[in-house]
Amino acid sequence: MERHFDEELSGLKSRLLKMSALVEEVISRSVKALVERKAELVEEVIKNDEVINMLEIEIDELCLKLLALYQPAAVDLRFVCSAMKINNELERIGDQAVNIAERAREVIKEPLLKPLIDIPRMGLLAQKMVKDAIDALVNKDDVLAGEVCRRDDEVDSLNNQIFRELLTYMIEDPKTITRAVELILVGRHLERIADHATNISEDVIYFLKGKNIKHHLEDQ
Amino acid sequence: MERHFDEELSGLKSRLLKMSALVEEVISRSVKALVERKAELVEEVIKNDEVINMLEIEIDELCLKLLALYQPAAVDLRFVCSAMKINNELERIGDQAVNIAERAREVIKEPLLKPLIDIPRMGLLAQKMVKDAIDALVNKDDVLAGEVCRRDDEVDSLNNQIFRELLTYMIEDPKTITRAVELILVGRHLERIADHATNISEDVIYFLKGKNIKHHLEDQ
Repeated sequence: MERHFDEELSGLKSRLLKMSALVEEVISRSVKALVERKAELVEEVIKNDEVINMLEIEIDELCLKLLALYQPAAVDLRFVCSAMKINNELERIGDQAVNIAERAREVIKEPLLKPLIDIPRMGLLAQKMVKDAIDALVNKDDVLAGEVCRRDDEVDSLNNQIFRELLTYMIEDPKTITRAVELILVGRHLERIADHATNISEDVIYFLKGKNIKHHLEDQ
Repeated sequence: MERHFDEELSGLKSRLLKMSALVEEVISRSVKALVERKAELVEEVIKNDEVINMLEIEIDELCLKLLALYQPAAVDLRFVCSAMKINNELERIGDQAVNIAERAREVIKEPLLKPLIDIPRMGLLAQKMVKDAIDALVNKDDVLAGEVCRRDDEVDSLNNQIFRELLTYMIEDPKTITRAVELILVGRHLERIADHATNISEDVIYFLKGKNIKHHLEDQ
């Protein structure tokens, strides 16, 4: 029984890693579609979302099966429950990447508004947060998880900067408005991805320390 | 043991109902703050978010306790796992209401852009979706849950309409840009609330029918 449970648990971990790798890939491709103006990447991101959605259901069902069959306790119970939550966060990150790809599809139909510098930077930061949050889970590294939470502020302020800059474009030339609004929304989507990565890190800390740090990180 | 579990389960249900009532209230107040230009409501929404956040943690811990102590099976296991997810969705809805309140705080500093008709309509729709999703859970009503999922399209198209209308304002008069962008973001936040209500309904259907309808609702 014990051995079976351990096998199932390692199957769960490897599926979460696969899910995370897929999600990191769609973040990267959606931003690339926008920056390099490649419509074929938009369609790739949308197609890959199907795979991510199916994997989410598979992981969810595996978690329920583990709870039902093995009735894990203590740290194992926390791991399975955290895995359910993290799985859900990863799927939502995939949805945000689809949103970015859909924005990219509109933006690249029109002339370039400006060279995009901060958006790809923000994309890389957000993607790294997702990667590190999952690494923190796999390596049981609560220090790394805490660091990911703190990086959220950096993404937020970059998003604010993008927002303000695009406002000035719109005010100077109304012809830029639709494109600028699309880019503002891309900034928001990336900010949401960073939020989800922060949620994952909080779940990791909960799993590792049995302590809920949500909503009062500043007290840490 | 059985009786204790049933008592704990009904405690869980009443906490979820309380959480939902709080969340419906902040949606309503955040939109009211914007429409009626009341700064004091902004602060109320932000203050109430604390209460919602603490209740989320309480519900989460109760779910884990139920899993650990009683190792529920079948429909009870599905209920506890669904409750964890629904709890999380409700908390995120609360966050969206805070976002709306923060937008309201900016918007009401400037002169009225236009009378707001569609945004409060969208607010009412989104709030009703949350209420009905939780009613579907409590009354085990999968038909109502399915209906909530379908109403998501209505909110999406209303959001699209708001978006397009505000674009025309910005193009005609650049002085309206910052306010119009804030209102576009409010539309987005309301759309997200409707998405969360849809997620809750999907969780309700999963709990009731043991069938995952996520990602392929159109096949139903």
